[in-house]
Amino acid sequence: MTELERQGANAKQAARRLAVSDTKTKNAALLAVAQALEEQAETWLSANAKDIAAAEEAGMKPSLLDRLKLTPERIRGVADGVREAAALRDPIGEILGETLRPNGLRIVRKRVPLGVIGIIYEARPNVTVDAAALCLKSGNACILRGGKEAIFSNRAAVEIMQRAILSAGLPADAVQLVQDTSRESAREMMQLSQYIDVLIPRGGAGLIHAVTKESRVPVIRTGEGVCHIYVDEDADPDMAATILYNAKCSRPSVCNAAECVLVHEKAAKAFWEKALPLLDTKNVQLRADEEALRILGDRARLAQSEDWDTEFGDYTLAVKTVRDLDEALAFIAQHGTMHSECIVTENADAAQRFLNEVDAAAVYWNASTRFTDGGEFGLGAEIGISTQKLHARGPMGLEEMTSYKYTIYGKGQVR
Amino acid sequence: MTELERQGANAKQAARRLAVSDTKTKNAALLAVAQALEEQAETWLSANAKDIAAAEEAGMKPSLLDRLKLTPERIRGVADGVREAAALRDPIGEILGETLRPNGLRIVRKRVPLGVIGIIYEARPNVTVDAAALCLKSGNACILRGGKEAIFSNRAAVEIMQRAILSAGLPADAVQLVQDTSRESAREMMQLSQYIDVLIPRGGAGLIHAVTKESRVPVIRTGEGVCHIYVDEDADPDMAATILYNAKCSRPSVCNAAECVLVHEKAAKAFWEKALPLLDTKNVQLRADEEALRILGDRARLAQSEDWDTEFGDYTLAVKTVRDLDEALAFIAQHGTMHSECIVTENADAAQRFLNEVDAAAVYWNASTRFTDGGEFGLGAEIGISTQKLHARGPMGLEEMTSYKYTIYGKGQVR
Repeated sequence: MTELERQGANAKQAARRLAVSDTKTKNAALLAVAQALEEQAETWLSANAKDIAAAEEAGMKPSLLDRLKLTPERIRGVADGVREAAALRDPIGEILGETLRPNGLRIVRKRVPLGVIGIIYEARPNVTVDAAALCLKSGNACILRGGKEAIFSNRAAVEIMQRAILSAGLPADAVQLVQDTSRESAREMMQLSQYIDVLIPRGGAGLIHAVTKESRVPVIRTGEGVCHIYVDEDADPDMAATILYNAKCSRPSVCNAAECVLVHEKAAKAFWEKALPLLDTKNVQLRADEEALRILGDRARLAQSEDWDTEFGDYTLAVKTVRDLDEALAFIAQHGTMHSECIVTENADAAQRFLNEVDAAAVYWNASTRFTDGGEFGLGAEIGISTQKLHARGPMGLEEMTSYKYTIYGKGQVR
Repeated sequence: MTELERQGANAKQAARRLAVSDTKTKNAALLAVAQALEEQAETWLSANAKDIAAAEEAGMKPSLLDRLKLTPERIRGVADGVREAAALRDPIGEILGETLRPNGLRIVRKRVPLGVIGIIYEARPNVTVDAAALCLKSGNACILRGGKEAIFSNRAAVEIMQRAILSAGLPADAVQLVQDTSRESAREMMQLSQYIDVLIPRGGAGLIHAVTKESRVPVIRTGEGVCHIYVDEDADPDMAATILYNAKCSRPSVCNAAECVLVHEKAAKAFWEKALPLLDTKNVQLRADEEALRILGDRARLAQSEDWDTEFGDYTLAVKTVRDLDEALAFIAQHGTMHSECIVTENADAAQRFLNEVDAAAVYWNASTRFTDGGEFGLGAEIGISTQKLHARGPMGLEEMTSYKYTIYGKGQVR
């Protein structure tokens, strides 16, 4: 038995306990975790200092270093997040349906945890705690496999959490960290279908594609976003410019940021007059098709075919001219990642067609794609944003981290 | 572009049309399909005759031959099934939730089709029509890859359906058949994630494991059933015997049939007195642990370890003695396939623990596992029985063949 198999078996055991734990016990464990993280902040900070030192030595970019770094204030924020998870409604045990059949069988459909959730991620140490808290609240055990850059921070966080969970009477194995941060350990997780019920990769497109390709464990794809803003013939140019500026520039590194604007040929002139001054404040680089280039001139350069499928994640924007709504719909069907798509228009018929026909998790009429987020949608918190259609779509809150089962009450019925 | 890629691209196009087709149009297409199948029964029968001739030449077992064979009566049954699909409530467009956010955004969660469903199956030609009808009703395009034994029958059925669908104003590519029935074509389907949204393998454990292992397309595992009947200390022996007999013998080849009985040591004597005479009527072969052998004597032979994990699919039954409910729960956790599990007991506390703690799609108290079925559950019809926890669990009706999307109505909101 490998180390990971042992962790998997232990997680499965823990999941059986968690599945029948009541809300009060789970909440007590979460509050204990929050308190422990604050009380033992020094331990977590000094572990983090080792990661930071190693990252500086390795020449990590300042923006990434900043994501890796913990501060007392950030730790308080993480602990508050855990308390917020405790305050959320517990989805487990909810009756989703009940039916009495003509033969007298009573069939009750009930919400249950997924079981063991594997999460493979690269990023910040706060994800370790955020993800564990949401799993715990929804009655799921988790196996966390973070990046090697954060290994000391993650170890410290998981040790603190495990002691707190145990002190609240739940199994410490509810939250486990994969110690080996090599590519091999991620591969092994993908094969562990006897222990892991669902795998959620969180990170760049490369990671997500690799997991989708290799995993035997069911996967939920998250967070790949090539999102479009379509500026319709009947768009209000001011509104379109404001929405595009927000969707592209308010936080370009996130998955709900816009990567491409589709501009109706008749709307182009009025739109760019409003949009360019805004985009210029962030020095947004434009990659435009030939028709748009005629308006944008030196302000843009010619787009290459790969630009239509790139999640830039920075201040770069692809620009495509379309002749009508049909062309916009076809372009999004071809190049979108089923994340978030937006039409800006005053024409209700065009908007309705867009809302109906675009196949994406979140389809917007006259609002920024940046709203695709568990908090913004009122789900409380999220474990990720699904871009697949199986199981869950868009922001995944606690309910989306559950399954259901049928319990059937008989009196000796046979078929 | 390969033939299958071409079919995938066409299915995607058809799915876009189907997703926005109204219930009336989809029902008209289904009724046209039912009528065409009856009117062109001769065409379908003579294609089937070719399959039957080839199968006889290849020495196919009579039981399999019978499954392959179409008759005018069976065709009427298939057509009636299509009419029943037309009569079911259309799940598409249902509003699953609506919320007005403090910032004025109106967020509507709406049920939508999954898109393109790939189905890989081995069995009877009626599956071709049943599956196509449920996909069509739920607004999904389908790519069907049946077994080579039924290729002529399947081709004829799909041609008849395509013409009928087209005559009703929907795209013929809504239903497509993979012409190549080699293992290669199944493999290629598993890689077609740009066109196929979900893959449903229907068939033996070997097929399902291969698809789970190799597919890049999200998979719903169906129909693997190693189901247990647990005869508790407080079971009514008559009821336990009747339920076991029904669960094992009423149709041993299906996935909701029982493969193993767990008998509480204190219940064993009274139970076997009632159960053996029933099982003997079908000459059920018993594979028992040593303790059970002491009661069963020559009537059984010693179970091998693989017997605990085998879906026999015939009149063979594994028999395991347990000391208490905990041992039964642990055994099911280790050897069950998360399909259907049953406790027979008069003890409500034991029953409640079993219902809560067993991790399976359907958990029964005093009723046969054979009820795990879309029709029996009141879902109308089913595309299969899911044994995974992601997306859908247990019998999958029309609702389980859908996803959802968020449509968001704004007035220029930015974040």
